[in-house]
Amino acid sequence: MAAQTILFDFTLDAGKTATSIQRQEVARIVRNELEHVFTQLELAYSMESMDNGYFSVLHENKETIITCRIFQQGLLTINVEYYLAAGKEPILSFDTGKRLEKALAKSLQALSGQKIPTLKRGDVARYYPSADERIIEYDIDTLVYEARSPFQKIQIMHSKTLGNMLILDELQNIAESDLIYTETLMGRGVENYEGKEICILGGGDGALLYELLKENPKHVIMLEIDELVMQACNKYLNTICGDVLEKRKTEQYEIIVGDCVDYMKKFIAEGRKFDYVFGDLTDIPISDTPIGECWDFIRTIFEHSFQLLKPDGKYLTHGNGTSCLESLQLFEDQLRLLKPKVKFTTTKAFVPSFMEEWLFYQVTFA
Amino acid sequence: MAAQTILFDFTLDAGKTATSIQRQEVARIVRNELEHVFTQLELAYSMESMDNGYFSVLHENKETIITCRIFQQGLLTINVEYYLAAGKEPILSFDTGKRLEKALAKSLQALSGQKIPTLKRGDVARYYPSADERIIEYDIDTLVYEARSPFQKIQIMHSKTLGNMLILDELQNIAESDLIYTETLMGRGVENYEGKEICILGGGDGALLYELLKENPKHVIMLEIDELVMQACNKYLNTICGDVLEKRKTEQYEIIVGDCVDYMKKFIAEGRKFDYVFGDLTDIPISDTPIGECWDFIRTIFEHSFQLLKPDGKYLTHGNGTSCLESLQLFEDQLRLLKPKVKFTTTKAFVPSFMEEWLFYQVTFA
Repeated sequence: MAAQTILFDFTLDAGKTATSIQRQEVARIVRNELEHVFTQLELAYSMESMDNGYFSVLHENKETIITCRIFQQGLLTINVEYYLAAGKEPILSFDTGKRLEKALAKSLQALSGQKIPTLKRGDVARYYPSADERIIEYDIDTLVYEARSPFQKIQIMHSKTLGNMLILDELQNIAESDLIYTETLMGRGVENYEGKEICILGGGDGALLYELLKENPKHVIMLEIDELVMQACNKYLNTICGDVLEKRKTEQYEIIVGDCVDYMKKFIAEGRKFDYVFGDLTDIPISDTPIGECWDFIRTIFEHSFQLLKPDGKYLTHGNGTSCLESLQLFEDQLRLLKPKVKFTTTKAFVPSFMEEWLFYQVTFA
Repeated sequence: MAAQTILFDFTLDAGKTATSIQRQEVARIVRNELEHVFTQLELAYSMESMDNGYFSVLHENKETIITCRIFQQGLLTINVEYYLAAGKEPILSFDTGKRLEKALAKSLQALSGQKIPTLKRGDVARYYPSADERIIEYDIDTLVYEARSPFQKIQIMHSKTLGNMLILDELQNIAESDLIYTETLMGRGVENYEGKEICILGGGDGALLYELLKENPKHVIMLEIDELVMQACNKYLNTICGDVLEKRKTEQYEIIVGDCVDYMKKFIAEGRKFDYVFGDLTDIPISDTPIGECWDFIRTIFEHSFQLLKPDGKYLTHGNGTSCLESLQLFEDQLRLLKPKVKFTTTKAFVPSFMEEWLFYQVTFA
C-alpha cells in the first residue's frame, strides 16, 4: 500500500509574485502546464486573498490532488499526490515529472526549479534523517522485527544493499555493512588491546564487544540497559556481533544489563580501573538517571568514565557526522569542561549505513 | 529563501477508513492532535463526499497550511507547509514533529507511522535521485557554476562533505570525493596500462584520463562531446582531474571534442585498434546520432568498441547501482547479444557521492 507524493518547487523573480493579481497570473500558467499532463484537471478550492500568498487545490477525478502555493517572496511549491495500487504504473513517471518541471520552469521564466524525487507514503518506513537532519531514503524491503522495550522502540529493517539495520526510536544505529564504524571507533591497528581491561558503556548491538574479543583483551565488561536490543541483535545482526550476545558471562567478558551510570558509580566506589572505556551509547540518552538535558548527560558520562580510567587509560567514543559542526563544537566544549583536564585526537570514517562521514574521539588525561 | 514541507503518514486498519463517516472521525482525531501544536488551526476546505477518500485543508493564520488526506485503503497522509524566513526557527522542529507523530499514532491506533525528515523548498537544489530512484539529500551549500551547453545543463555544486560535485541535467555524476569510482572503473592494481593504447568514450570530467596517465600508457585518446563540461571540470574539479583538461593534445594523450560514435566509425574505417576502451559516458545518451532508444545506444557503443579492440583487449565500463537488478540484467542482456561473443567480470565499490554501491564491468572477447 502506498501513495506517491511528488514535490516541485520554483524560484521566481519576486517582482512577479508581489501582488495578488501577479500571483493569480502565475497560478494560471501553472494550471495551464499541469493540464498538459493532467487533462481532466479541475479547481476545487483557492485562497486568493491572502496577504502574503496564494493557495489552491486542483484535482483530477478526485484521485490525483494537486496543491499549488505561491509565496509573495517569489517561491512556488506544487505538491502532487495520488494513491498507487500495487503493480500499477505511476501516474507521474520519473520522465514525465522531469518534463513537467522543465515546461513549468520555461513558462514561468523561473530562476531555478527542482522536482524532488518521488516520496512513497504508507509503505514500509524508509526515510531516516542523517546526523544533520538531511533526508535519506534507504532501500528497505522488509521490516524484519519490531518490538517496544521499556526504553525504546526497536526495529530491524532489511536494506537490499546494507543488510539488516538496527533502528532505535526511528533513528538508524548500525547495519551489517558497518564494520568500518566499529573498527574506527576502536582504532583497529592503532590501539593494542592485548591483556587490557575494558569497559563498554552501551554497545547493545554487540559489534564492538565481538571485535574487541578478537584482540585478546584480559577482560571486557559491557553495561547495556536494554535486554531486548541484545536479543534482537543476537538474532538478526550476528554477521556483526557473532555469538557474543548468546552468553552473558564467560572468562573473557561479562554483559551486565542495567543503567551504565549506576554501575559506573558502583565501580568508582570499589576503586575499579580500566585501560579503556568506550562510550557506545545511543545519541539520545535513554538512561533513567535524572541528570537533566542531553549535554549534562554526556558530561556525566565523561566524568564518570575518567574516574574509571587508569592514568594512561583512554576513553574512545563516536562524535557526530562531520557536517554537524555546531554539535561537534558543543561536544568538544563538554570535554574542555572536564577536571582533571583531558586532551583528545579524532579520526573519521564514511559509515555506509549513515551515508555520511562520522567523527570519532580518542580522549586521554592531559 | 525556503519553505519547509513536513510529511507524515500513517497506516490505519482499513476497517476504520472504509466509509465516509469513519474517515470524518479519523479527520476529527487528526485535527484534535494538530491543534495541540497549531493552536490557531482553522478548517479552510474539505472534500468529504469522495467515493474513495477524504481531503481537507487546514491552516493557521493562512501561514502554515496543512493538508490531510485519508484513503479508503487505510492510509492517512498529512502535509504541513510554511515559509521559513532566514534566521528564523522552524515552526515545527525536529522534536516537536516527532512528538506530534507519536501522539497521532497513539490517538489513531495506527498500525505504523512515519514523519519524513523535513524537506527544504526553494533553497539551492539539494535533492537528487539514486540509481534506483531513492531520494538523496546532499549537504549542498553553494551553486558554484551553472551553464547550459548545446547538450545539457551543467552545474557544479559544493557539498560540505563531498566537495565539488558535477551535476548534468539534474543528475549527480562525480564529486571530488570519488577517487574510488575512477580506481574501480580502471581496476587499479589489477590492470597494467604501461605502454598500452587506450580510448576513453566520454570522460569529460577528466578524472579517468588523469588517473590513467599516472600509469604510463603509450597513448590515450578521449572522445568527449561537451566542451563546456571540460571547461567547468578543469576549473572546479581539478582535485580529481589535475591539469589534464588544460591542454587538448600532448605526446601522451589527445582529447577530441566530438560525438564518440562518429569518431569510433572513423577509427574502425582506419583499422585503428586499442588495448583498452573505456565506456565513461553519462547514463542517459546525449549523442546526436539517431540510434533509437537507450539500450540501442548502449549496444551500438558496445559493438563499435569491440571493433576497436585488439584480440586481447578489454572494454571497461560502469554499470549501475547494485540495487538496480532489473537494469543490470538488461545491461547484461545487451552484452549477450554481441557478436562475436564476449564474456565479462564485475567489480563493485561504494561511491561516496552516489551514496550507493556501484557495479563495474570488465568485458573481453569470449
